[in-house]
Amino acid sequence: MINWTESVHHDGSPLYVEVAEQRLGATATLRLRVALEAPLTAVYLRSCPDGEQTIVPMEPAGADSVCRWWRIELPLRMLSTGYRFLLRTLHSGNLWYNAAGIVPHYPTDTNDFKLLADYHAPAWLEDAVFYQIFPDRFADGDPTNNVRDGQYVYMGKPVVARQWGDMPHREHGSGEFFGGDLQGITQRLDYLTDLGVNAVYLNPIFTAPSNHKYDVADYATIDPHLGGEDALVALREALTARGMRLILDIVPNHCGATHPWFVAAQADPAAPTAEFFTFRRHPDEYESWLGVDTLPKLDYRSERLRELMYAGENAIMRHWLRPPYAIDGWRIDVANMLGRQGPLNLGHKIGRGIRRAIKAEQPEAYLLGEHFFDGTPHLQGQELDASMNYQGFTFPVWRWLAGFELASVQDRPWADVLPMSTEHMVAQWQAFRAAIPWQIVTQQFNLLGSHDTARLRSLLGGDLRLVRIAVALLLTYPGVPCIYYGDELGLEGLVDPDCRRCMEWDTTTWNHELRAFFQQLIRLRRTSLALRRGGFQVLYAGGHTVAYQREVAEERLIIVARRADDGLQSVPVRHAGVPDGARAHDLLGETETTVEAGALPLTGLPAVGVMVWSIT
Amino acid sequence: MINWTESVHHDGSPLYVEVAEQRLGATATLRLRVALEAPLTAVYLRSCPDGEQTIVPMEPAGADSVCRWWRIELPLRMLSTGYRFLLRTLHSGNLWYNAAGIVPHYPTDTNDFKLLADYHAPAWLEDAVFYQIFPDRFADGDPTNNVRDGQYVYMGKPVVARQWGDMPHREHGSGEFFGGDLQGITQRLDYLTDLGVNAVYLNPIFTAPSNHKYDVADYATIDPHLGGEDALVALREALTARGMRLILDIVPNHCGATHPWFVAAQADPAAPTAEFFTFRRHPDEYESWLGVDTLPKLDYRSERLRELMYAGENAIMRHWLRPPYAIDGWRIDVANMLGRQGPLNLGHKIGRGIRRAIKAEQPEAYLLGEHFFDGTPHLQGQELDASMNYQGFTFPVWRWLAGFELASVQDRPWADVLPMSTEHMVAQWQAFRAAIPWQIVTQQFNLLGSHDTARLRSLLGGDLRLVRIAVALLLTYPGVPCIYYGDELGLEGLVDPDCRRCMEWDTTTWNHELRAFFQQLIRLRRTSLALRRGGFQVLYAGGHTVAYQREVAEERLIIVARRADDGLQSVPVRHAGVPDGARAHDLLGETETTVEAGALPLTGLPAVGVMVWSIT
Repeated sequence: MINWTESVHHDGSPLYVEVAEQRLGATATLRLRVALEAPLTAVYLRSCPDGEQTIVPMEPAGADSVCRWWRIELPLRMLSTGYRFLLRTLHSGNLWYNAAGIVPHYPTDTNDFKLLADYHAPAWLEDAVFYQIFPDRFADGDPTNNVRDGQYVYMGKPVVARQWGDMPHREHGSGEFFGGDLQGITQRLDYLTDLGVNAVYLNPIFTAPSNHKYDVADYATIDPHLGGEDALVALREALTARGMRLILDIVPNHCGATHPWFVAAQADPAAPTAEFFTFRRHPDEYESWLGVDTLPKLDYRSERLRELMYAGENAIMRHWLRPPYAIDGWRIDVANMLGRQGPLNLGHKIGRGIRRAIKAEQPEAYLLGEHFFDGTPHLQGQELDASMNYQGFTFPVWRWLAGFELASVQDRPWADVLPMSTEHMVAQWQAFRAAIPWQIVTQQFNLLGSHDTARLRSLLGGDLRLVRIAVALLLTYPGVPCIYYGDELGLEGLVDPDCRRCMEWDTTTWNHELRAFFQQLIRLRRTSLALRRGGFQVLYAGGHTVAYQREVAEERLIIVARRADDGLQSVPVRHAGVPDGARAHDLLGETETTVEAGALPLTGLPAVGVMVWSIT
Repeated sequence: MINWTESVHHDGSPLYVEVAEQRLGATATLRLRVALEAPLTAVYLRSCPDGEQTIVPMEPAGADSVCRWWRIELPLRMLSTGYRFLLRTLHSGNLWYNAAGIVPHYPTDTNDFKLLADYHAPAWLEDAVFYQIFPDRFADGDPTNNVRDGQYVYMGKPVVARQWGDMPHREHGSGEFFGGDLQGITQRLDYLTDLGVNAVYLNPIFTAPSNHKYDVADYATIDPHLGGEDALVALREALTARGMRLILDIVPNHCGATHPWFVAAQADPAAPTAEFFTFRRHPDEYESWLGVDTLPKLDYRSERLRELMYAGENAIMRHWLRPPYAIDGWRIDVANMLGRQGPLNLGHKIGRGIRRAIKAEQPEAYLLGEHFFDGTPHLQGQELDASMNYQGFTFPVWRWLAGFELASVQDRPWADVLPMSTEHMVAQWQAFRAAIPWQIVTQQFNLLGSHDTARLRSLLGGDLRLVRIAVALLLTYPGVPCIYYGDELGLEGLVDPDCRRCMEWDTTTWNHELRAFFQQLIRLRRTSLALRRGGFQVLYAGGHTVAYQREVAEERLIIVARRADDGLQSVPVRHAGVPDGARAHDLLGETETTVEAGALPLTGLPAVGVMVWSIT
C-alpha cells in the first residue's frame, strides 16, 4: 500500500465542490476523500473570512469499500474564498492539505484552494477544443488579395511573395507572404469539423505590414490581404452555422510604428495621441517592446488610450465582440508586459479594466492572455479567464518527453537538455494549478506548441510514439486544449519561421494514422464528462510512468502514459476510490483488464505509449 | 559531507546584496555562495523586468578554502525586483534556487528573492529591542488617576478597581483596573534601560472605557486614567532623553460603541458619521468586529473617514507622529481585517494609503500590523513595514519547544499537542521569510508572546531551560525582537486575562538568573553586527537540534539550540564558509572549541540548552 497521505484528495470538480451557483451568498458543500485506512481522527476546514481565520470540524460523510468522505458547508461571502484542510492524525500530529498537497507545518495562504463567486465563466469552454491558425499559412482562398512581390516596403526591404508550400526563410524576416487568408479558412471548415475541433484561435488579422501582424497599423480594420472585414463576417457566419467559436489575437501592449497614433505622435509632441507613448526624447527615443523600434509601447496612464482600447462605449476590444463579427473572445498578446514600465506597474489595473469592459459587453467572451512565465497573479478571477499554459502544462510535458527547456535551445545556453523526471513534471503541473482557482484551471489554454515555438514533432525528434503521448495528455488534462494547425498531420518545423510552414493540403503526404489518433482523442475529450468537467488526481508518478484519474460521479477515467520502458506492471488505484474487481477497458484500443490488489495492471501498454482506461 | 545543495546560499544581507542606496536606477551587486565541491558548470540570474523573463550568466567571483562565490549586477528598475538563480549542474540538470530553497522544476515567482527600491526603511529598527507594556498592569505612577471602584458602568456592570498584584479575574471581563499608567512607565525607565531594551510598544492608550482600550471612544485624547496627554508628553521626553523609541497601538478597524461617531450615527441615519459604519438595519444591526456589538466596524468606503483616520492633513494617524508626542510608529490592530467586509476588500488600498500618509509625515515611522495568520500579502513593500510575526517565528518556536498550536488550547480542539519536528519548524520559518522581501524580514516584529497569548513560561510548562532557548532564538533571529513585560522575570499566566497580570516590582520574587540571561542576550543583540544586519543560513535541523549562522563580513555567529538530548556531537559548518581550524567561543559562557572535519563540535552544550558561538 502506498502512503495514505497520497489518498487525500480534493479539487474544485463536482464530486468535491457542490454549489448550485457560484454567487455571493451561496453556500458550497465541500467534500474530501481519503483512503479507508487513513489514520485520521478528525478533519477541519480552515478559511479566512474577511482576513480572520476560522477552523471548523468537517463531518464524516460516508464510506465505500476503499475510501471515506468528509463534508462541510462553506458560505461564499467574498469574491474569492480561500480554504484548506487540517488533518488530525492518530500519531503524527496535524497536517495541512492545500492545493499544493500535504504540508506538515502551517503554510502561507498562497496555495489555498479558492472558490470564486460572481465570476462569469464562459460556459462553452467546457466543450471547446481549439485549433490555432496562422492566417498567412493555412489556406489561400482568394489569390487576388495576395501580397504581391515587391508590393510595398517592409522594414526597409520590399516584401516577398512566396510560393505555397515552399519553406519560410529567416532571411526574409516577417516580410514574406504565402497568400493564406480568411476565405481559405472558411473554405476549409469541413476539414476542421472532420478533425473534430469546434473553436478557432487566429493569430492577428488586423491591418499590419508584417506577415504576423503583431505590428498593428489599424485596430479597426481587417487586413485586406487576409480578406478584409467581409471575409471575417463570412467566416463568422460559417463558424456559427457549425456551432463553432472564434477568438482573435489582439496586441494592446504596443502597436506598429506605422499606426497613425504613433505617426502623429512622432511628428508632433503636441499631437493628441502623443500621450499614448512614452518618449524619453522626442521623436526618436521612446519605449518599445523589448527595444524593437517598430513596436512602440502603449502608455496606459493615458485615460484616452484606455477608453479607445477597452473602456469606452465603442472601444476596440468591444467593437469586435459585436455583430456582425461577434467574436467569442480575445487572446491578449504579451499580457505579461501590459501596462508595465519600470516603477509604473498598471498591469493589474489594466487587467481588471479589460475584464470589466469585455464582460459587460459579452459575459461569455473568453479572455485569454499570453504568459510564457508565471501568469498566476493575473489568474485570480479579477482579470484573465486563462493564460496560454506554457509553464503549467506545455513545458513540463516537453521536458518530460524530450528534455528541452524551451523550443529554441540554440540561443539559450542555460536550457536543460536532460529530460525532466516524472515526479518533477507532475510537481510543476501541480505548482501552477495550486496557485489559481480550480475554475481557472479548467479554463487554462493548454497547448503543445504555437507560432512561437518549435513544432511538437520536431521537438520530439520525430518520435511519433512520444507525439501520441503528448496529444493524449493534452486532451485529457484539465483545461481547454488547443491544436496548432498541421500538428495533426505530423508537420515539422523548428522555431519561427520554420514552425509557420504552409498547411499541407496534399492528402497523400499526410500522416493519416496520426490524424486519426488526434480525431480519436478529440472525440473522446468532447464526449467524456470526466474529461470535460472531472476532477484530477495523480495516481502515480515515478520512473518513466505517469498515471492520473479524471472523475465525475458518472464516469471515471485513468490515463497512463510512459515515455520509456520502466518495467512497471501496474499502477495503484485503490487510494483513489477504485476497488478490486473494477473492470477497466482501454478507450483507445480493445484491451480489458481487472483491478487487483489495489492496482490497475498495465496490460497492453506499449513500452512507449499511452492508454485511457475507462473504469466501471 | 552533507548534500552540496544545502551549501547554496543567498539572502538580502550585505555579504550577498551590495547596493549603495536601494533607489530606482541603482544597480545592486548580487552574490551567491556554494561549497567548493558543488558540481556546478554555470549559474544564471533570472529576473523578470516589466514581466518579461531574462536569464543572464553570473560570473565566478573567487573562492576560499571551502566555498566559491558567483556574482552579477542587477539594475533596480522597478519598486520591487524579483529574482532567482538557475544552477546548471554537471549530471543532474538544472535546479532553481529561490528564497524557499532549491526547486527542481520551474517555480512560480511567489518565492523569488525580492529587492525593494525607493522603499523607506526606518533605519533605527536595526538597533531596536522592544518591550511591550500593557499600561494598566505595568506600574501605577499616579494613584489619583486610578479608576475607582464603580466609577462608571462598563458593559452593563460597574467597573472594578483591583489591588495591585492580585490576580485578574475572567469574571470581571475587561472592566477591572489595577491603576497602571503612563507616569508609572516614565518612573520605571531605569528598569528598562537596565534590562537593555531601547524601544517601547504600548497597548492602546486612547480614551476608552475598557482596561484594554481597544474600544476607542476618542482617538484624539489619551485616557485620563492613564495620565492624559501630559503624561504621554512626559513619557516621550523621558524616552527621548534616553534615546528610546515609542510606538502606540491604534485600532482603525473599528471603534468603541461609545465613540461619538457611532453614537451620532446610531441616533440619526442622516448623521455625517453614519457613513463611517455599515448598518444592515438601522439602528441596531450593523457590522462589527467578529459580531461584537460594542466594536462597530469602520467602513472605509467613506472618504471622510479615510481623511480623518490617516489621509487628511491633520488625520489621527498623523497627529500623534507630531511633536510634542512624536511617536515613532504605529502598531495597527487587526490589520488582517482592515477594510474588508465580504465582497468589499479595500485592505490593500487602505494599507497603501496609510503608508503614503504616515511616511509623508514621518519617513522613519515604523508601520507594524497585527497579523495572526498569513500577513505576507501586506508585506511586499507598499503597505506595512512589518507584522507581528506569530506565524513566521513565534508559533513554530512554541510548537517546537512545547507542542501547542496556539496558546489557548482549551477552546481549540484542533490544536496540535505534539511538538513540531525541528525540520518543520525551520520549514515554517523559511516559508514565511520566502514570501516577503529580505528588507521586511529584518523588520518583522518577533515575539514570544503578547497580551493576546499565554505567557512563554507557562506555555513551556515552567521549564526555564526551554525559556532560555526561546529567548536566545528571539534575539538571534532576523527581525526586531520584542519582550513582553515581565517575561524577563519569569512571570506566568495563561491566556487573557491571566497573561495580563501586574508587573512584579518586589525584587525578592524575581528570577534574577533569568533576567540576567535576557540582559546578556539583549546586550549581544544590540552590539553584534551579525545579529543586527547579518545573513541567516540554517546549518542543521534534525533530531532535537537546530543550528544557524548569522553573518556579515566582519563577524560570524553560529547559534545552536537543542530541546532534548539527541546525541548529536557536532553540526556541519564547512558548507557555510567555515574552514577546519576555525576557532569558536561561546558568547554565553566560556567554552572554546575548534572546527574539525567540516563540523563544529557541540562542546559544552547541555542536553537542553543553547549556545551562541563566535567563529574567528
